[in-house]
Amino acid sequence: MKIDNSPARGTRDLLPGVVAHRDHVLATISEVYRRYGYERIETPALEAITRLTGGEGGENAKLVYQVLKRGLPEQVEAETPLNDLIDLGLRFDLTVPLTRFYGNNQANLPLPFRSFQVGPVWRAERPQKGRYRQFYQCDIDLIGEESVLAEAELIEATTEALAAVGLTDSTVRLSDRRFLSALAQHAGFAEEDWMPFFITLDKLDKIGWDGVRAELIEKRGLPESAVKTALDGIERLRDLPASKVAESLTDVVPNLDEQVVSDLATTAASLERLDGIEWAFDPTLVRGMGYYTGQIFEVSHPSTTSSLAGGGRYDKLVGRSLGKDVPACGFSIGFERIVDLLEQKLDRPKTAVLYESDVPVPDALAAARRLRAEHGEVSAIKRSGKFPAQLKRLEEWGFTAFAHLRADGESEVRQLR
Amino acid sequence: MKIDNSPARGTRDLLPGVVAHRDHVLATISEVYRRYGYERIETPALEAITRLTGGEGGENAKLVYQVLKRGLPEQVEAETPLNDLIDLGLRFDLTVPLTRFYGNNQANLPLPFRSFQVGPVWRAERPQKGRYRQFYQCDIDLIGEESVLAEAELIEATTEALAAVGLTDSTVRLSDRRFLSALAQHAGFAEEDWMPFFITLDKLDKIGWDGVRAELIEKRGLPESAVKTALDGIERLRDLPASKVAESLTDVVPNLDEQVVSDLATTAASLERLDGIEWAFDPTLVRGMGYYTGQIFEVSHPSTTSSLAGGGRYDKLVGRSLGKDVPACGFSIGFERIVDLLEQKLDRPKTAVLYESDVPVPDALAAARRLRAEHGEVSAIKRSGKFPAQLKRLEEWGFTAFAHLRADGESEVRQLR
Repeated sequence: MKIDNSPARGTRDLLPGVVAHRDHVLATISEVYRRYGYERIETPALEAITRLTGGEGGENAKLVYQVLKRGLPEQVEAETPLNDLIDLGLRFDLTVPLTRFYGNNQANLPLPFRSFQVGPVWRAERPQKGRYRQFYQCDIDLIGEESVLAEAELIEATTEALAAVGLTDSTVRLSDRRFLSALAQHAGFAEEDWMPFFITLDKLDKIGWDGVRAELIEKRGLPESAVKTALDGIERLRDLPASKVAESLTDVVPNLDEQVVSDLATTAASLERLDGIEWAFDPTLVRGMGYYTGQIFEVSHPSTTSSLAGGGRYDKLVGRSLGKDVPACGFSIGFERIVDLLEQKLDRPKTAVLYESDVPVPDALAAARRLRAEHGEVSAIKRSGKFPAQLKRLEEWGFTAFAHLRADGESEVRQLR
Repeated sequence: MKIDNSPARGTRDLLPGVVAHRDHVLATISEVYRRYGYERIETPALEAITRLTGGEGGENAKLVYQVLKRGLPEQVEAETPLNDLIDLGLRFDLTVPLTRFYGNNQANLPLPFRSFQVGPVWRAERPQKGRYRQFYQCDIDLIGEESVLAEAELIEATTEALAAVGLTDSTVRLSDRRFLSALAQHAGFAEEDWMPFFITLDKLDKIGWDGVRAELIEKRGLPESAVKTALDGIERLRDLPASKVAESLTDVVPNLDEQVVSDLATTAASLERLDGIEWAFDPTLVRGMGYYTGQIFEVSHPSTTSSLAGGGRYDKLVGRSLGKDVPACGFSIGFERIVDLLEQKLDRPKTAVLYESDVPVPDALAAARRLRAEHGEVSAIKRSGKFPAQLKRLEEWGFTAFAHLRADGESEVRQLR
């Protein structure tokens, strides 16, 4: 009988080599974040379903895995609303749980609070290549810091973390939701058209300038002159050297809030001081989530068209859990993407003690124990089959050395390659 | 408005100090297991509901969190069986997923395979003090090793891991399901009464000898003479010094399989060679799970009446996933219990850069960067309120040192305590 042992659809088993690689990447990133004062917290995988679907999760909230209440009867009565059967769901990101966590534990946390989170999230997406229903997110958030020190520090720490795992040559793209809103207003869009304008603008990579223009005018029915003003402004800023952008923002949007200009100048000045960080103002950057309220940013890398990390300021989100607004800013590394990009290196020495079947068990264990003191990772494995074939298998399994243990004595440790 | 930000009932938020403590304990245990050749794997939190409830999970399988199928209509039709609405569940232990994992990935794994798992499991239990609906398990398993080298190695590695986190003075209690079955048979119990006999025997700690005797005779209706034979045998073995037990087993159960005797002698000889490990044969040890087939063991510690770790051989369980039997043996550390027992020590130095509000953000970040090179973990925090009060808060938050940054210069780093 053929038994199906696949993991549930859209999920995967992680084998030892993959886990070791992931652990190494994670330890390297964690070490950098810890040096910036970010401390790891953990929240439960399960949250109240009302919290997961009632907030600003957008499209992701539709993908929540819903968990059945306990103690239900075995048959469901007629016309029971599905919602009556569920009370919990699996978290679809780490931001919704973080804001609840901050609301719950604020009294015991530093101000500002530097949070580091890493762990699985779940989304009931249609499975496709490279997309999983369970995957890791890796977020840092700075809660309670109103100045762009937060933005600049998050960008510095995250680019340093990426460099530490080998992803140098990254470029930071920066924009500001307040600028985008002011531009939309200046161009003459009604306020309810701002978000549709952003959503179309966000597709620039895929559909190009002509596509964006066509979608705004034909599909969204926005006035042609307003669309021209907005897109011209964006193109103008796009061509400027990064250091000139702040002073040029008001050329494009004359009534722009002064704070937006000075914030951009401050972040720019902070980034300019960092060695090896390229950055650019990118007025086409939108980012999907509705909750951003200030600067937004992504990290691009020549090895992929997707961004390696993304984040921004969300000053109104924590307030929903706390009852009063608390400034907050976060940056999320695309952990799965980075793990896939980086080459898996496994060079830990591993030694096998090949014991013949007539060696007493206590002696085999004692030999392994002796070798462990000197050689690190040592596994006891029974001799079986032909010697060269067994050595070949050991090598395939990642062993780097072996010792042969017979009832009458023990060989030296020999390298396998 | 008071907003409820508690985590879902029976689950908890883990604050930075708690996570750091848990991470430290886990890293210490992992390091020991890695030296024995155990490699970490990961399986998804979600498994097919049929796998979770169809196996040998016993009582735990009744506590599975059930996950709703995707794409159901918003109202449930009349008399729909609840089972038709669900297809997945959250794992309640790490053993069921491990056997599936081994079945799925065997071709890419070493033989024997040394598996290390750590991660959350979920049980819809009635919440009570010290019991959570999401908690971590920490298991090592040796799959494919038929000899008691597995048992002896698992015990050696686990007691070493416990000692590494500070839990020395532990005692290993050892028994064998095969011996218990043979004793039950020898005493004259019918085969269907063996498991009830074990279950009652397992309560000895709570109800004492008289309670066990009474339950077996009065509640279970077992013959008085058979009960006397079984309990006398157990008491007799209990009083022997550990090293004498193997040779005495057949005095109590004359027709005992020779392999059981020699296995106990081998494990005993292996444990005798370990410094600082106390062990005892404990014929009253039963362990709950139905799937054990050979030696079973627990680790006791003077600081708690609960056991710190438990495990045993389960030679028939992997076969259910694989279609052919594979010998296996596992040991599970009670991670949450150990974390609670150990004192939380947090002595990492943490430095705060207290910057006055007139210090430009790029300068504050640059000062933090400079100090980070020398002082490790450095956080930029704005000066606010009275100086001594802020220093007191820093200390409460776990900072050990600070530097004061003014627009006209920067103080030395000073210790907070």
